[in-house]
Amino acid sequence: MTNKKVIAIYPGSFDPPTNGHLDLIQRGSRLFDELIVAVLRNPEKDPLFTVDERKSMLQEMVRQWDNVRVETFDGLLVEFARRVNASVVLRGIRAISDYEYELQMALMNRKLAANLDTLFMPSAEEYSYVSSRLVKDIARLGGDIRGMVPAMVVEHLQQKLRRPEAFKK
Amino acid sequence: MTNKKVIAIYPGSFDPPTNGHLDLIQRGSRLFDELIVAVLRNPEKDPLFTVDERKSMLQEMVRQWDNVRVETFDGLLVEFARRVNASVVLRGIRAISDYEYELQMALMNRKLAANLDTLFMPSAEEYSYVSSRLVKDIARLGGDIRGMVPAMVVEHLQQKLRRPEAFKK
Amino acid sequence: MTNKKVIAIYPGSFDPPTNGHLDLIQRGSRLFDELIVAVLRNPEKDPLFTVDERKSMLQEMVRQWDNVRVETFDGLLVEFARRVNASVVLRGIRAISDYEYELQMALMNRKLAANLDTLFMPSAEEYSYVSSRLVKDIARLGGDIRGMVPAMVVEHLQQKLRRPEAFKK
Amino acid sequence: MTNKKVIAIYPGSFDPPTNGHLDLIQRGSRLFDELIVAVLRNPEKDPLFTVDERKSMLQEMVRQWDNVRVETFDGLLVEFARRVNASVVLRGIRAISDYEYELQMALMNRKLAANLDTLFMPSAEEYSYVSSRLVKDIARLGGDIRGMVPAMVVEHLQQKLRRPEAFKK
Amino acid sequence: MTNKKVIAIYPGSFDPPTNGHLDLIQRGSRLFDELIVAVLRNPEKDPLFTVDERKSMLQEMVRQWDNVRVETFDGLLVEFARRVNASVVLRGIRAISDYEYELQMALMNRKLAANLDTLFMPSAEEYSYVSSRLVKDIARLGGDIRGMVPAMVVEHLQQKLRRPEAFKK
Amino acid sequence: MTNKKVIAIYPGSFDPPTNGHLDLIQRGSRLFDELIVAVLRNPEKDPLFTVDERKSMLQEMVRQWDNVRVETFDGLLVEFARRVNASVVLRGIRAISDYEYELQMALMNRKLAANLDTLFMPSAEEYSYVSSRLVKDIARLGGDIRGMVPAMVVEHLQQKLRRPEAFKK
Repeated sequence: MTNKKVIAIYPGSFDPPTNGHLDLIQRGSRLFDELIVAVLRNPEKDPLFTVDERKSMLQEMVRQWDNVRVETFDGLLVEFARRVNASVVLRGIRAISDYEYELQMALMNRKLAANLDTLFMPSAEEYSYVSSRLVKDIARLGGDIRGMVPAMVVEHLQQKLRRPEAFKK
Repeated sequence: MTNKKVIAIYPGSFDPPTNGHLDLIQRGSRLFDELIVAVLRNPEKDPLFTVDERKSMLQEMVRQWDNVRVETFDGLLVEFARRVNASVVLRGIRAISDYEYELQMALMNRKLAANLDTLFMPSAEEYSYVSSRLVKDIARLGGDIRGMVPAMVVEHLQQKLRRPEAFKK
Repeated sequence: MTNKKVIAIYPGSFDPPTNGHLDLIQRGSRLFDELIVAVLRNPEKDPLFTVDERKSMLQEMVRQWDNVRVETFDGLLVEFARRVNASVVLRGIRAISDYEYELQMALMNRKLAANLDTLFMPSAEEYSYVSSRLVKDIARLGGDIRGMVPAMVVEHLQQKLRRPEAFKK
Repeated sequence: MTNKKVIAIYPGSFDPPTNGHLDLIQRGSRLFDELIVAVLRNPEKDPLFTVDERKSMLQEMVRQWDNVRVETFDGLLVEFARRVNASVVLRGIRAISDYEYELQMALMNRKLAANLDTLFMPSAEEYSYVSSRLVKDIARLGGDIRGMVPAMVVEHLQQKLRRPEAFKK
Repeated sequence: MTNKKVIAIYPGSFDPPTNGHLDLIQRGSRLFDELIVAVLRNPEKDPLFTVDERKSMLQEMVRQWDNVRVETFDGLLVEFARRVNASVVLRGIRAISDYEYELQMALMNRKLAANLDTLFMPSAEEYSYVSSRLVKDIARLGGDIRGMVPAMVVEHLQQKLRRPEAFKK
Repeated sequence: MTNKKVIAIYPGSFDPPTNGHLDLIQRGSRLFDELIVAVLRNPEKDPLFTVDERKSMLQEMVRQWDNVRVETFDGLLVEFARRVNASVVLRGIRAISDYEYELQMALMNRKLAANLDTLFMPSAEEYSYVSSRLVKDIARLGGDIRGMVPAMVVEHLQQKLRRPEAFKK
């Protein structure tokens, strides 16, 4: 074990990244040799931020940790994991309803790739109500989202708000 | 990160250890530099197997992995974690009801020890119905528990069954 | 306390209002000095009834209680609460899945407005299966919805049904 | 009782049918005099397979059981049940989130038709992660779905994949 | 199928039987050729009513249905099922927490006896809050339990109440 | 409504009272004309603190609010509510498993007393992991419970700890 590097991936949409994501990245970076934040490039969904904007915000946020890097992916998560040699999928979980779906995905991924394990890490309780979707909803309605996302993300959201057609959804 | 050894503990009662536990130990041994199976020495509960019997069954089961060892503990889990230098608590989860309580414990433990993270690993679906309590109930009623626990544990349970006062509850 | 008036808001889409809503309004009117039924004016969703139709059905339904009034709102709920001086958000809950999301919203709203408390009131069990969405689905398929919504709402739904393009969804 | 035939319906979208569906049909065929697999003809959803394709795949799959037949339906499930003289609705359940919604539907259906009972049958644990939606997602991304659906369905999915516009969603 | 008799067992403690149990027995009697109410003779628990008292109350309650009979059992449920030739275990479910445990039992029982299926039937919503334990608690505290249990059970509970040592717990 | 005083009761074991309880009492005192903290005098349970110790700790804690008082009760909650003229039962909820049982109790209490409503208030997220039981467990094992209970309760727990037979369970 001691000689083998363990690589974990932390997949998600990160539209936008929140302080809850950041907390989990920090914790994950302490536990694995390498942590790859994997931004889903989903052509079917209609995200607020482009995949490049999301990647660049995340890169700024993780710059402080040497063993964390940001990549984008599409297709099967298990294929991406194989390509980057990861043996762990790291997932944050907040609530029960999260967990149910996450568990189904984890069992399916294990079926598709027997050596890929999913580990769930509970969100810090101060971020237990923070999700990308709620943050976007509140920002759009003019609410105060400081403390929920990094300052840089606040700014990016405000820039989008000045072009309100971005929120048409 | 690369130079720091990550030690995980897998705490539980293991009364007795099951194939579900074994599956999780194997998976955990691949992900962390060291995995300590931590057998709870709970003087208030009334286990079927003594803490020494449980420790010795587990030692037999994990002998095949170099980076796994078995210890016993009582008192606060976070204190034990500090003593053995662990930064991860590994927990298997089967069902939702499990998860709720586990999440509460995880948040409490994080409050008591900010640098100790809890990671949940879903049980393999073929063991999703296997728990130590169910195994004991079925063995007591004469049911077939092969495939749910290692062969060695089947034998130990049968020995206990010959002294039925052990099952008085 | 005795001199201070407590104002509660009961927010929702009410598309259409059901007997479950009515039951909760009646109960809420007994508990708070003032109860404001707050109809969400959501420009992004595509409701069956216009916000004015929903407001006018509700006004008819609550006419019997002096301390209940109906208003419409858009934007952040906490902003509306501030404007009308409310200190309570009242929410009915039926099922667990409801509750999870409701709890997340409640914690978020408390973060946005520390003095605004959310109180959950369980639905009467005879309405535990009644939701606006199910009522619309059943009406559209020609099922009998009497007993699930007030007689007046049955009529309004039947009028819409005569113009089936309203149900295109 | 002995003289009365009990007819059960097993309703669903079956887009496409999976091995989990097949397992439940087999089990159901042993328990009831007649089992009608009822394919929902939902004009509002946008299925991958037409209702005729789904019916014909299912007919192929159930050919081995004398007391199982496949039909299509639209409108209220309770109306269809009345028409075919069914007294049981059979539903598979995998996860908790499933169950909540299913329970609401069951109570509603009992309200609409007092003599129609809903019975839930747990999925075999080896199919606990298999759903039509996941199977389609994985097939679209090029993953291996053998073991999740009958061989015939694998072929039909591959034919659709050659015409990728079918997957536009 | 048409020639084969399907026998279902409805196992439980029935300490005491409630109107919720009665409702489920009635529904079950319509769906299966034979329904056996199976009273658990659990020597480790400390019931309020003896197994004979429970059996005799149930026999009185089911007298109206020809195809229902009451038996007692101990040991493994799957063994009892084999002995009486049952192919179905019928279980009522009220709430989610119920369901989780019930699902685990169902999967375990299927493992122990592949041909024994568990079917869950949702409780009627008017009995959704009624459990044997709650009924006993309320009776002991002098509350009104009419409408929750058959009149005959009300009487039996009152007789027990006159000998309050029966309630010592 | 404006002339009618609304009295709420907040029932519980409070063994011991925690900061989560205190937070809920403060919030409740703002919403109702009178709030009665109702300490359950349960002769069957074996509490760590006597009912008088629990009452006196709570009285100290609520002294700052004019409209809050502490009482003890046994028997049916609905009877106590009638006696003190309460129309609301206030309950804190943390997790889903809580909620399920609480909902069952609420429906039962409504059956027993139609005019008594139960309102659920979510715990502040910083106390979401704090329960009386966990606090006692941690204190017994020598863990730090400051921040989870008022300072006064810390002292009382330490006094109990000096007489360890109090913790025998």
